[in-house]
Amino acid sequence: MNDNYISGIAERVLNSDKRSIAKALTLIENESKGSEQLLKFLYSHTGKAHRIGITGPPGAGKSTVTNCLVKLMNEQGLKVGVIAVDPTSPFTGGALLGDRIRMQEVGLLENVFIRSMATRGSLGGLCKNVVEACDVLDASGKDFIIIETVGVGQSELDIAQTADTTIVILVPESGDSVQAMKAGLMEIADIFVLNKSDRDGADAVAATLKNIIHLKPPSEDGWIIDVLKTTGSQNRGIAELLSKINEHKDHLAQSGYLKTKRTQQLRKKIGELLTNRLTVSFWDEKKRNYLESNLESIYEKKNDPYTFVDGLLKKS
Amino acid sequence: MNDNYISGIAERVLNSDKRSIAKALTLIENESKGSEQLLKFLYSHTGKAHRIGITGPPGAGKSTVTNCLVKLMNEQGLKVGVIAVDPTSPFTGGALLGDRIRMQEVGLLENVFIRSMATRGSLGGLCKNVVEACDVLDASGKDFIIIETVGVGQSELDIAQTADTTIVILVPESGDSVQAMKAGLMEIADIFVLNKSDRDGADAVAATLKNIIHLKPPSEDGWIIDVLKTTGSQNRGIAELLSKINEHKDHLAQSGYLKTKRTQQLRKKIGELLTNRLTVSFWDEKKRNYLESNLESIYEKKNDPYTFVDGLLKKS
Repeated sequence: MNDNYISGIAERVLNSDKRSIAKALTLIENESKGSEQLLKFLYSHTGKAHRIGITGPPGAGKSTVTNCLVKLMNEQGLKVGVIAVDPTSPFTGGALLGDRIRMQEVGLLENVFIRSMATRGSLGGLCKNVVEACDVLDASGKDFIIIETVGVGQSELDIAQTADTTIVILVPESGDSVQAMKAGLMEIADIFVLNKSDRDGADAVAATLKNIIHLKPPSEDGWIIDVLKTTGSQNRGIAELLSKINEHKDHLAQSGYLKTKRTQQLRKKIGELLTNRLTVSFWDEKKRNYLESNLESIYEKKNDPYTFVDGLLKKS
Repeated sequence: MNDNYISGIAERVLNSDKRSIAKALTLIENESKGSEQLLKFLYSHTGKAHRIGITGPPGAGKSTVTNCLVKLMNEQGLKVGVIAVDPTSPFTGGALLGDRIRMQEVGLLENVFIRSMATRGSLGGLCKNVVEACDVLDASGKDFIIIETVGVGQSELDIAQTADTTIVILVPESGDSVQAMKAGLMEIADIFVLNKSDRDGADAVAATLKNIIHLKPPSEDGWIIDVLKTTGSQNRGIAELLSKINEHKDHLAQSGYLKTKRTQQLRKKIGELLTNRLTVSFWDEKKRNYLESNLESIYEKKNDPYTFVDGLLKKS
């Protein structure tokens, strides 16, 4: 892949050409040669899109709410990109696409681009390529980028560090409001959505959530977390959700916290990039072979991993 | 901290002294000076304990089942260590201990050691210190180590790579059996436990799970995944669970797969250790300052992160 080929894709991404966006995302997802060159090209065109993270436990209706939100944004003439992060599947190497299929319908809309990504066993819950995929969509001129991820745990922390606005979706049943605290969801949400709120007990759960929020220390930037009720299957509460997102977006800009947040993201990105470069350049074939030929004796406790690594570092 | 102090702790850990185990775990959790020295001392005494990962969605009753299992193991004269990995709480720096309190009761038993750990925003869902904490418990002579973690997503993949036997706990409600597939749980479980199985629909969910398992390609080592029913709150099904764990333990030993699995864990550990060394030795104060003084211009798109990192690498 030569520079002309890459810069050609980059130009067409900037013109929002769907096929080239898809090609660019594939290059990036596979970490193909030229993908970094492409990101370099695009970088100065990023930073305009507002990035929304949508997360919550399995079965909360994240895909349904995302779908409704995308349709509404599209009706308002907004350009939207969606990255749906599928559960990692390191054993099969693939992702179970399940209810992503519903998304294909909105994906056909002119100004909407939808992409499913598997995390492929990367160390972080949300692999670094997701951030880079967002950069591509951002450079292509999207107004909003939605990153949808399943998960309780690490992937949510990653999403909170990647997104400008983090939405946590819960449902009335199974004590989710209390469990949310355990799972650290309280700490990452800018907006709570109680989906399937036509079900029994929704008001009680919403009230409990609001009480829990009141117990929290206020956020550094002065934003007040709210609990919204939606019924995704009936497309209810979506307009209110979009207006709340816009409110948070304005708040971030006016408080100056958007810059703080994005600078922090940049610091993290550079750190990861550097760690990656150091690691990749360290592990040549000779060192890999040396590791493999020593594993047995470490397993047999004839050596320990710490002493071995010290020795390995001295070899370079 | 001098070598004598560390070797003193190590000696007492090997004698299973509870206070010294606690001290050792604190050193390791905080990555205090001397913690690596301690792990070096202990390494040759590890590898005897069988490591059990227990995971599943919030509210499935993981702590309750763990509690019952620990009591039963204790009754059988087995020594048990438990590492309960609390949800990461990078914003408050602390973990919500909630229902860990129940565990304190069993923690008072002579041959039981229980520790809660926060993941503290480490990049992996299960930070590397959890593996090292298991090494301490292993060296202290425990027969079984249980690593309990909440989560759907990355933390489960980490647990599967850390544990010898991975148990996934589900409950009858909220379509967990189907959601389990989405969340990649299918791929990591050696044993499925359907907890709260006195509830409506438990048999149907168990049957669905068994059907899903039949659709899976058989595991490389020939192990057949089973679905067990428990009611943790009534201490039911626990003896069957322990006997299934022992069956899997024997299977791993006989098939030779235990060695394969642990060698793979070792390979991963060495890789992480090395990456960590490279990164730590790279970032001196001068380079940190250089990064900080350049962040603004990268944020302003006057430079891009890729070019910046290349420049930074040339400085070293």
